[in-house]
Order: sequence, then structure tokens, then C-alpha cells
Amino acid sequence: MPVITLLTDYGIKDSYVAEVKGAILKILPEATIVDISHDVGNYSIDEGAFHIARSVPYFPEGTVHVGVVDPTVGSDRKAIIIKAKGAYLVGPDNGLLAPAAERLGFEKVYEIENRDLLPEKVSDVFDGRDTFGPTGALLAKGVPPETLGSELDEYVRLPAFEPKLEGDSFEATVIHVDGFGNLVTNVTYDHLGMLGVGDASRFRVEVGGREYLLPYVRRFSAVPEGELLLLVAGGGYMEFAVNQGNAEERLGIGKGAKALIKMEK
Amino acid sequence: MPVITLLTDYGIKDSYVAEVKGAILKILPEATIVDISHDVGNYSIDEGAFHIARSVPYFPEGTVHVGVVDPTVGSDRKAIIIKAKGAYLVGPDNGLLAPAAERLGFEKVYEIENRDLLPEKVSDVFDGRDTFGPTGALLAKGVPPETLGSELDEYVRLPAFEPKLEGDSFEATVIHVDGFGNLVTNVTYDHLGMLGVGDASRFRVEVGGREYLLPYVRRFSAVPEGELLLLVAGGGYMEFAVNQGNAEERLGIGKGAKALIKMEK
Amino acid sequence: MPVITLLTDYGIKDSYVAEVKGAILKILPEATIVDISHDVGNYSIDEGAFHIARSVPYFPEGTVHVGVVDPTVGSDRKAIIIKAKGAYLVGPDNGLLAPAAERLGFEKVYEIENRDLLPEKVSDVFDGRDTFGPTGALLAKGVPPETLGSELDEYVRLPAFEPKLEGDSFEATVIHVDGFGNLVTNVTYDHLGMLGVGDASRFRVEVGGREYLLPYVRRFSAVPEGELLLLVAGGGYMEFAVNQGNAEERLGIGKGAKALIKMEK
Repeated sequence: MPVITLLTDYGIKDSYVAEVKGAILKILPEATIVDISHDVGNYSIDEGAFHIARSVPYFPEGTVHVGVVDPTVGSDRKAIIIKAKGAYLVGPDNGLLAPAAERLGFEKVYEIENRDLLPEKVSDVFDGRDTFGPTGALLAKGVPPETLGSELDEYVRLPAFEPKLEGDSFEATVIHVDGFGNLVTNVTYDHLGMLGVGDASRFRVEVGGREYLLPYVRRFSAVPEGELLLLVAGGGYMEFAVNQGNAEERLGIGKGAKALIKMEK
Repeated sequence: MPVITLLTDYGIKDSYVAEVKGAILKILPEATIVDISHDVGNYSIDEGAFHIARSVPYFPEGTVHVGVVDPTVGSDRKAIIIKAKGAYLVGPDNGLLAPAAERLGFEKVYEIENRDLLPEKVSDVFDGRDTFGPTGALLAKGVPPETLGSELDEYVRLPAFEPKLEGDSFEATVIHVDGFGNLVTNVTYDHLGMLGVGDASRFRVEVGGREYLLPYVRRFSAVPEGELLLLVAGGGYMEFAVNQGNAEERLGIGKGAKALIKMEK
Repeated sequence: MPVITLLTDYGIKDSYVAEVKGAILKILPEATIVDISHDVGNYSIDEGAFHIARSVPYFPEGTVHVGVVDPTVGSDRKAIIIKAKGAYLVGPDNGLLAPAAERLGFEKVYEIENRDLLPEKVSDVFDGRDTFGPTGALLAKGVPPETLGSELDEYVRLPAFEPKLEGDSFEATVIHVDGFGNLVTNVTYDHLGMLGVGDASRFRVEVGGREYLLPYVRRFSAVPEGELLLLVAGGGYMEFAVNQGNAEERLGIGKGAKALIKMEK
């Protein structure tokens, strides 16, 4: 029961995702296909990369992840396969797959060159259906990547989103707003570890032109309903949240916002 | 081919649902996973409960239903397994699973206590991925609930949404507005049976500050296009609808609205 | 691993799609079910027909496509099975399935009459769950259509959406706006072939009260970011697009808009 995941910016109103799935099932009828998300903002490579990197550790060994956020489809950007620890990643060489590969453990990267086993390339603007989906199916079926192309020396990476650390404070960036209105920052457990932050700490935060004193907690319910908090959620990133509420609305900020965060003594 | 259903308030923009599915497939690669809905309003336990209860009779014997609308995740609310007739239900003990359990036939309830077979609890705020999904996979795989926890005497139930009956009229409440704008009330076939209502009846309805005389029909097309009607739809509840139109917009009311409904002689 | 696709106008907020899937899995637990779209505008038969017709060639031989956009459910409109080349199509006889059947190659059409193998018809307004889904499962399981009903002489077709050709220009209609804001017209490769249009051509276009001179290209990146273009995309239809942008917003037109398109010498 090989698992293939899909992440695209195609949306679910159109038949595009279904056509990719059909193309996969033509090659590997027993595939289990799991949608990661198709509601990535159109052409948002970094948002797609965030979702894939978040998800990959939770899938079985041998899963093939197909990602298609591909604003330059039809140009000379490469189509690639990344072999990472316990998984393959397939998609355009534009950085989309890089954070996931690095999280799993990068091993090798190949350019997809040989179309002998792939379906006819019907269109120059639908590589998801004509190239990436079918390549994922072939890999899940056991075809070695060497059969599909040749190894590359490098691949495109995204600029690192490390927070700036200065003494006991750091400048964080909001890298994602989730469906609950939680504001996910680029600060991880490891960054907090550098500051020696424990469960009981509070932070002084400057964000959106205001200053807040916020508790750093392990669960939403550690503060009363409707109150702001900071917490490291399931993805490993620190986020601004409101217990049973919406932090995006409360703080009036969004993706890309900067926050100066200082540990309160 | 064990079937596992999922209902959450996670939305489908984020990777949260995919991570739950990955965690299920790690334990049970041959699972067939069916989404009931992930667009339940954030933290709306009663709406989630409505959807699960509606759906469960239509799934095969042995299906495991995992529900996660969990505003108090991380608090001391219990994580439970309900054994019902022909199905298991897994989720937080906050009423979400209760109407479905009662519809199928409640048998036993267990608290999930033993994490030996569950994955590492990565986060205190993502029990869908770290507890409920994997528990569903273990049950679908044949692990008995006694292995995962101990029996409880009681579980949280939602307040009953019975309409008030007085002679030949009743006060109904709109408990759900569906994607077509149909206004689903808490009046069922059984309630109508008490009033001796037949196919040809009409009702006098006071709702949203106005009065209407509405036909009670078996199909939308029993009235001209664009006309209001009352009908018991596929879920067994009486709803306000407009033939090929939108009753929510027409009546200007929403969830929670009260309607005084009287049979017209 | 028989594949069953679903297209409905049910939306994904409600449990309706899940109930159809449950009803399918009760009959055929090993079915692989693929969603084409459930976000077809309510009651938009032509939009649903467009999506099904686009998708069918990309699915494996033997796939069963179940389509339910059914504004006259409960009336005397027929429930049908179309046998096409390499696939079955199941749904209401209102034109929804016709373009897909013709694209694959129409063979025979049957009216669903015999409910012996179908579940109880719980509702008069939910044929997706009570009739079409289960019929699809039976066909995918190998039950011949003759067992389920008798052959018909004809079925409902949609009016053809052919562009009007006059010499070296034609009047095109926008038949769909996709999630990227691309405006899909009813002009196909074949129509362009009649005009002898090559890769390097440009068109003079009158649309939305304005005139444009637009390049006809094979890929979005053939024009600078943010520029308008004409291209035949993955579905075989010519569309207005903007490289990494939104043509709907740029042109200020939508579905149904007419465009006078003339080849530029």
C-alpha cells in the first residue's frame, strides 16, 4: 500500500487535482493518495514548502511526496526527484521541496529527463498531471530514480528564515497564519533552548506597533478563554494564539509581520 | 479494508488533517480514510456532533469514526473510545461523539490511558495526530479497547435539541444551515408522526418576525422554482428550503433561529 | 482496485459527500474513491459537465464516474447509466454526463429501474447517496448494467458550446473561470487548426468593451510576469491568462462573457 501525498496550489474547485490522481492511479492502481493541501496561495512557494516540511515526519517510511507550486512551469526550471531519508520528494526545482528534504535528511537529487515511462506530455503548463504525479507513482511502484534521470550536484534552496537572536531577545517573523488565526513564527524549540526558556516564562513582545506581556505555555487552556498566549504547537514552531479565539484578528497582523520578543525576568 | 472516518475543525488549508492521516497510515497502511468534514466552525462541538450523527448509519459495519473538535485540548478533559453497535467512536469527551453513539446504539465507553501502542505525544495541543487518529487506527486493526484504557461509567452528553410540542404546533430550532442554504431544524419524522402529518399538509410558520403558509412536501420540485417549502431531507430532519434556491437568504435567519410551526387545517 | 470518481454540487462543509462514500464502501469496501470536485456552483449542470469531461481521459480503464448535480431530484427526470469507451458514467439524465460520454465515446445508455441490489431509498431528495453512489459501486464490482435497468434510446444532451467562426475570426465564450482566474473559452486546438494558427501568432481581441493585442503562446513564462496572454492549457481549451497573475481581475469579465478574436496578420 504505497502512500503518495500531494500538495499543490490548484485549489479544489477545478478538476486539476483529480486529473493528477487519475494519472497516478493509471500507473499504480493500489496507491493510497493523501492530500496535504491544495489551498496554498497561488504561486506561494514558501507556504507550500512550509506545509510539506511540517507533514513529512508523520508519514510511513517509503512515502512519496509530490509537490506542485510551480509559477515558472514551462520555463527551463528543472523537474526533480529528491531522495531523502525514508522518502522521495518530486516537483519543480524552485525550493518547494528543499525544507522537507532537509528535515528528513537529504541524500541525492535527480533531474527528471527520461519520459519513456511517463505519459504523453499533453500540455506545457500542467506538469503536475503529465510529469510529477506519474513520476511519483513510478517511484512508489519501485522504479529507481536513476531510471528516470541523472543525478544533479545541486538544487534550489529557499532563504533560511532564522530569527535574529541578540542576547536575550530575538526578532521573529510570522511565516504562516493557520485556519484558526494562530500566527506561526520562525522561532523553534531549539531557538528557545538557546535562551534557556522554561515552561513558566513570560515574554515581552513588540508587534504591530504595540507591546504585550505574554505567557509562554504548553496548552491553550493555561490562560482564560479569550486571552493571548505564546506556545510551541504541533509543528514545532512558536505561535501567537488566543485560547478559543483568533490571534490574527486580535493582533491585527499577518504573514511577514515582525515581532521583537524578549524574555521577561 | 477497514474504514476510518475523520471529522475535525482543522480546515483543509493547513497540513493538520494530512498529519493525522499520515499517523493513521503508519499504523494501518491499508486503511481507507474518509473525510466527513473539516469545515466545522472552529470549536463548534454541536455542529461536529450533528455531522457525525448524520453520517454514521451509512458506513460499513466495523467503521471507526474519529472526531476532533476539541477547544479544551491540553486540559483535563478525557480522551475516549465509545463502542457503539457496529462501530467505534474516538475523540475528546466533550459531547462531540455522543449523538452518533446514541443513534447507533451505545454499548461501552473507555478512557484512553495506555500510550504503549501510540506514537510519542509530540505536542500538548495536537491530540488529533498524536492520540485520536492513531487510536482509531489501532481499533481498526483489531486492538481491543480494553488494551488502550479502562471502562468509564459515564461520558459527556450534549443537551437534547428536542422541539417543544404544544397540541398541534411546536417550536422548532434551526440546528444547521447547509451549503445550499437549507435550514435544518430539530424536527424529525417522529415528531411529525405525533402530529399525524401526511404528505399533503401545509404548515403555518412564524419565523424571523414574519408568517408564512408553507407546503410540506417530499421533493423540492413539488413547488415552482424559487418557492419556499418544508421537507424532511436525507438526514431525517425537517428543513426550510427553496426549490433551486437559498432558504437562508430568503428567510433572513440562521442557526439558532426559532420557528413556531402549526399544522394548517 | 476499482476507481470511482465523484463530482457533486454538495460542497465539503456538510456530511453529504461522506454519506455517498459510506454507501459506496458498504457495497465495495476496496473501492478507491477520487473527488473530482464538490464545489461546482449549486445546480450548475454545465459547470459540472465541464469538469467531468475534462477529467475522464486521465483515469484508468474501467473507472466509474458518478456525477450528481441534480436540481430536479425527486421529479420524473431519469436516473441513468451511460456505458462509454472504457468507463461507466452514472447520474441524473440532465446533460451532466453527456459531454464526458461523448469525449470517451458513447456506447449505450440505461435507465436505473431495478432497486433490488440498491439500498433502501431513504429520501426522495438524496439520490447521490441512495441511488447513484451505490449504482456506481455495483458497476465497479462487475454487476452488468442490464441487471440494473433497461436500455434507453436517447439521453439529454447539453447545447453545444461551439464558437462562431467567420473567416479568420471567431466569437468565443468564456465557459469557465478556474481557481487561478484563468478564463477558459470554448475554443479548442481543433478550432485553431482551422485557422492555421501557429505558435508565433498574435490575436486581436475585443472583450469587455476593450481591444487587446495578445500573444498566443505555449507557456505562461513566454511573456513577462503580469502580462496577458492566450494559451491552450492542459484541458485542451484556449484561455486568457496572466503570467503569475489573475486574468479575471485584469479583464473584469467572467463566465458567459463573449470575446471577438481575430488572428493578427
